[in-house]
Amino acid sequence: MARPTRRGLFLGVAGAALTGGTPALADGKFVSEPFWGAHQAGITTPAQAHTYAAAFDLVTGRREQVADMLRTWTAAAASLCRGEPAPSDEGGAVHPGDSGETLGAGPARLTLTFGFGAGLFVKNNVDRYGLAAQRPPALVDLPQFKGDELAEARTGGDLFVQACADDPQVAFHAVRQLARIGRGVAEMRWAQSGFLSTPAPGQRPRNLMGFKDGSNNLRGDDTAAMDAFVWVGEEGPAWVRGGSYLVLRRIRIALEHWDRMPLDFQEQTFGRRKYSGAPLGGEDEIDPPDLAALRADGEPVIPESAHIRLAAAASNGGAKILRRPYGYNDGVALIKERWPPWREGLAYDAGLLFVCYQRDPRTGFIRIFERLSQHDMLNQFVTHTGGGLFACPPGAAPGEYVGQRLFEPGKRTA
Amino acid sequence: MARPTRRGLFLGVAGAALTGGTPALADGKFVSEPFWGAHQAGITTPAQAHTYAAAFDLVTGRREQVADMLRTWTAAAASLCRGEPAPSDEGGAVHPGDSGETLGAGPARLTLTFGFGAGLFVKNNVDRYGLAAQRPPALVDLPQFKGDELAEARTGGDLFVQACADDPQVAFHAVRQLARIGRGVAEMRWAQSGFLSTPAPGQRPRNLMGFKDGSNNLRGDDTAAMDAFVWVGEEGPAWVRGGSYLVLRRIRIALEHWDRMPLDFQEQTFGRRKYSGAPLGGEDEIDPPDLAALRADGEPVIPESAHIRLAAAASNGGAKILRRPYGYNDGVALIKERWPPWREGLAYDAGLLFVCYQRDPRTGFIRIFERLSQHDMLNQFVTHTGGGLFACPPGAAPGEYVGQRLFEPGKRTA
Repeated sequence: MARPTRRGLFLGVAGAALTGGTPALADGKFVSEPFWGAHQAGITTPAQAHTYAAAFDLVTGRREQVADMLRTWTAAAASLCRGEPAPSDEGGAVHPGDSGETLGAGPARLTLTFGFGAGLFVKNNVDRYGLAAQRPPALVDLPQFKGDELAEARTGGDLFVQACADDPQVAFHAVRQLARIGRGVAEMRWAQSGFLSTPAPGQRPRNLMGFKDGSNNLRGDDTAAMDAFVWVGEEGPAWVRGGSYLVLRRIRIALEHWDRMPLDFQEQTFGRRKYSGAPLGGEDEIDPPDLAALRADGEPVIPESAHIRLAAAASNGGAKILRRPYGYNDGVALIKERWPPWREGLAYDAGLLFVCYQRDPRTGFIRIFERLSQHDMLNQFVTHTGGGLFACPPGAAPGEYVGQRLFEPGKRTA
Repeated sequence: MARPTRRGLFLGVAGAALTGGTPALADGKFVSEPFWGAHQAGITTPAQAHTYAAAFDLVTGRREQVADMLRTWTAAAASLCRGEPAPSDEGGAVHPGDSGETLGAGPARLTLTFGFGAGLFVKNNVDRYGLAAQRPPALVDLPQFKGDELAEARTGGDLFVQACADDPQVAFHAVRQLARIGRGVAEMRWAQSGFLSTPAPGQRPRNLMGFKDGSNNLRGDDTAAMDAFVWVGEEGPAWVRGGSYLVLRRIRIALEHWDRMPLDFQEQTFGRRKYSGAPLGGEDEIDPPDLAALRADGEPVIPESAHIRLAAAASNGGAKILRRPYGYNDGVALIKERWPPWREGLAYDAGLLFVCYQRDPRTGFIRIFERLSQHDMLNQFVTHTGGGLFACPPGAAPGEYVGQRLFEPGKRTA
C-alpha cells in the first residue's frame, strides 16, 4: 500500500492550500508559534481560542523511562507546533503514528506547555526517580481553601500538559499524540477542554458571567513585569529558572442562579460595569479601580467584598499573577445548589478554567485566593471542583528536551 | 444606574467594530444566517464550527404555557441570530435579561433549530396538551439497536434545541437565554457541546478518527435531493410539512484503541484511504465507491463489513440522509473497554455528536443503522451513549412562531 511520509504529506497539503491563495491564510490557521526558546510557549503567548489541558500520572518506577518520554514528547511537540504530524515509529509497536485528524488543518497557533507536579518528586513518601531533593520549595501542596470542593478525579497529577490552539481539534490532537507516545509510562488522570469567545480585535473576551475578563491583567509583552512576577529567578533550583508556576482551577459557575440576579447586583459583585467593563466609579474599562473612593453615603464605591477589590494587588501586598483563563462547558450534571433551599438537580456544568502563572505561588495565587475564598461576593456563584499546581520548567533550546535540566543537570546545553 | 437598551448597546459595539474596518469583518463573526423562512435554519446551512445542543422536559400541564414559551423563544431566536441580545422583560421577574457574554461577539452565523420529541404528544400515556392526535407516524420510538448503551440522562426530551455558530460562546449563550426564558415550563434534560475542525476552504473536516467526514453526504444546496430525502412532504401532518426529522446520537469513540490500529486496518474498516479520503479502489475523495470491485484474490476491494459499504444508499434500498455531525470532547471518564481484556479505567470521553436529518426516520436512519449496528467493523470502536429523535417543524414566517401550526392550526399565516 502506498504510504506517504507524513512530512511529505503535510507539505503537500499545506502546499496545496498555500498555492490556492485561500482566505485560510489570513485567519491564522497557518500561523505557528515558536516552540523553542528561553521560556515555554503558551504562557505569555496571546491566548488562542481553544485549549485542551491534561494531567498524567506516572506509572513507571524508572527515571530513564520518564526522561525518554520527555525527550520524545519534546520532539513531538516541536513538530506539532509547526503543524506537522507527531513523528511516528513505523518500525516499532510503541506508537504507530499520528492519528491524522489535523492533516490540512494547519498549526493554528498551537502551543504546548508542560508542568511537573509534586508527584514527580515524591509520591506516597517515595522518591521514585531520585528527584526529591530537586523539588522546589515553591512547589508546595496547595492548602485547602474555604469552599473548595475539589474532586480527586479532576485534581493533581505528576505531569501536566496544556495545549492551546485556534482550532479545538488541533489542541486535542496534540495531547492525544503525547498520550499515545507515553503509553505505559504516563496515564491520563484528567483532561479538560476550554474555549474563549473571540470578540473584535482590541476587545477583551467576556467570561460566561458576561463580564470582560483580563482588564487589569499583567501583559505578556511587558518583560519587566514578567521578570518580576512570572519567571522564576535565582531563588529557584537551577532547573526551574526561567520557568514559572502554574495554578489551574476548574471553577463551576452557577449560571442559572447568576442569570436571575439583577444587573446592579452583578456589578456590585464584580466591582465593574457589565457592559463597558469600567470599574465602579470609572468611565472606561482601562481606568484603574479607585479602591478609596466613597459614595455620598460614606460607603465605598467599590464594595468591600467586590471581586476586583479583593483580587487587587493593593489588597494583597502587591501580589500579581498572569491570568490565562478559558471558559469550559461540559453540558449539564447533577449538582447540589449552594444556596437555599439547596435544591439538587441538573445544572450547567460550565464555568471557568482558571489558569495563572507566577514566580512563586505562595506569594501569588495562594496569597490572593486566601482572601478571595473567604470574602469574595462571587463565592456564592462559583465552586472550585478541580485543578492543580505545577512547576513549569523553562523552554528548551533546540537539541534539548523539556525538563532536561532536571533529569540531566550535567548536560545543560542552553 | 445608566442602563443602555440592549439593542442600542449592540449597535454601538457592532458599529465600533464596523467603522474600525477590522479583520474580524472578514472572518465571519459579523455574518448572520437568516432565521425566518420556509425551512428552519441549521439544517441545510453550511456547518458552523461549534454547536451546543440541548433537550428539555416540559414540566407544565398547560398547553398555552408551552405555546407562549415557543412564541417567546421564536422572538428571542430571531433576535439572537441577528447578533442582538435576547429580548428582556425589564419589568417582570420572569426573565431579567440577556446574560451579556456575547456583547461585541457578533452573530457568528448562529442558527437555532427546534425539534419536538414524542413526549410533547404523549408522555407516560398522558396526552398533556391535547396534541396526541397530531403525533406524526414517523415520530416513532427509536428501536433498541445492537450495541446501544444509551444513558437515560443523555437521551430523549420533550423539546430539543440545537444552536450552531462559529463561536462556542455564541452557541451556548443562545441556548442559555432560551433556558432562562423557559424556566418553570421547560427544564433542561441534557446538553452537549461539539466542534468541527475547519480545514482550508473546499476541504472536508476530519473526524476524530482522522478520516474525512461527509465525502458522500447529500448537499444542502441540492434542493431536489432535499425535497426527496430531507423535507417532509404531503405524507406528514400539515404542521410538520416543510420540516424534517432529526436523529442525534452521542457516539463515544475508543480513540486509544483506534490509535493503536495499523493504517491498513483503519482503511479497511472505513473503506476509504485515510489521507486522501478516496474510497478503496478509487483515486480521489469524490470518486463514487465501487462496491462491486473485486481484488485479484476474489475478495471485494471494499470489504463486506466496511463502514461506507454498509452505509451506502445502494446497500439500504436507496436510503439517504443529510448528515451534520460534530465532534465532541468531554475529557476523560471511567469507562469499561469493549474489547478483551475489558479493562475498566479512564478513557477519552470523546467522539462524534452524530446529527442527521431525513424525511422519515423509518426509511432513513433506522433502516441504515439497523444494518450498521449489526455488521459495521467500526462497532468495536464506537458506543452510542445518548441521543434522540425529534420532529423539526418547518421554519416560521415573520409574525409566526416555531410550532404555531401545531399549537394553533387555524392561525396558519405562511
